[in-house]
Amino acid sequence: MPDSCAPTTRTRVVREPDRAVYDREAVYKILDEGFICHVGFNVDGQPFVIPTSYGRAGENLYIHGSAASRMLRNLDSGIPVCVTVTLLDGLVLARSIFNHSMNYRSVVILGTATAVQDPAEKLEALRSLSEHILPGRWAESRHPNERELKATTALRLPITEFSAKVRQGPPIDDEEDYAFRTWAGVIPLETVARAPVADARCPPEISAPGHVGAYSRKR
Amino acid sequence: MPDSCAPTTRTRVVREPDRAVYDREAVYKILDEGFICHVGFNVDGQPFVIPTSYGRAGENLYIHGSAASRMLRNLDSGIPVCVTVTLLDGLVLARSIFNHSMNYRSVVILGTATAVQDPAEKLEALRSLSEHILPGRWAESRHPNERELKATTALRLPITEFSAKVRQGPPIDDEEDYAFRTWAGVIPLETVARAPVADARCPPEISAPGHVGAYSRKR
Repeated sequence: MPDSCAPTTRTRVVREPDRAVYDREAVYKILDEGFICHVGFNVDGQPFVIPTSYGRAGENLYIHGSAASRMLRNLDSGIPVCVTVTLLDGLVLARSIFNHSMNYRSVVILGTATAVQDPAEKLEALRSLSEHILPGRWAESRHPNERELKATTALRLPITEFSAKVRQGPPIDDEEDYAFRTWAGVIPLETVARAPVADARCPPEISAPGHVGAYSRKR
Repeated sequence: MPDSCAPTTRTRVVREPDRAVYDREAVYKILDEGFICHVGFNVDGQPFVIPTSYGRAGENLYIHGSAASRMLRNLDSGIPVCVTVTLLDGLVLARSIFNHSMNYRSVVILGTATAVQDPAEKLEALRSLSEHILPGRWAESRHPNERELKATTALRLPITEFSAKVRQGPPIDDEEDYAFRTWAGVIPLETVARAPVADARCPPEISAPGHVGAYSRKR
């Protein structure tokens, strides 16, 4: 796969093209930091957008088929999807309403999602979903059995046609507006993990393992 | 408008129907807490999903047209969209991989988005977008002038066909898995606002006003 993705007419960023990023590593970094994606697909011409978790293994993105049961009805030969991951970093307060904005990093991937048939790849897809959310968790959980694997659909979306859009930094006002007397700046936003809450049926002698207790990835 | 929305075949929650919410006030509460939505629409049969800010005024949702410039090419008579707002509340760690989940609240609105033509409604739409993100900000900013209003498209989506899905609480494992020796519980997630960062060109004597400094809405 190339290190970057020449934008197609479909992925070229139309608005604010200076915010566009087509670099594969930069896109992976955004993907790896997100918790959920929003999957878009059509049913009878009506768009649907469903939030779901995802994983990445190399140049493939995996999502749970169950998240989009409507989509799966028509999935035999693959279905056009758009997967979008957005990280919100701050509120950008300008002098003028018009120049208010947000700091964010987002990735849009277009392509055809197909059901993973090979059992080994399906297990690997589920592992990537689990490790994406919480590295180390897979090793400490009861792995899927045959019945569960059968009941689960994993979808593969090759990360081939993609673009990212990034806005960071202070507000940019029209020059004449800098004289307008109001506070301007950024309110940074961050997703933080709070102290883990043990399930009531979790024996008290089992304390939260390192991968849970040390969970402090900034989001 | 009715207080709840009888699910249509399109909005009826198919997976985990016990998580479904069709109550209008509950849906408004989720909408009012979110910062961004993901808008889904089609261009030549390809789904697109774009993150953007939004506002709500009564029974209408407003979004910036600029966020979806691709969509706007075909907007004359309205275009089918799906607007989804997702709040992520926690990671749910079960004993089995299969029963891992997330705590979340999400809303899906289906409908036809149309461009707001009436100048008064357009201004009101922009005000709702601004006040949604940061209540009090509209009054302290330089309001849109005629040129800016002309350059802005606001889209109206009536909140008519909608559903919400909510998952909260501890993991639910298969009964036989409770004997599996691993920690289980929830890692709560929260979006927090950090201390505001003043723009370098903001005069030091202008301190952050109440609506910025006291910004502590939990997200």
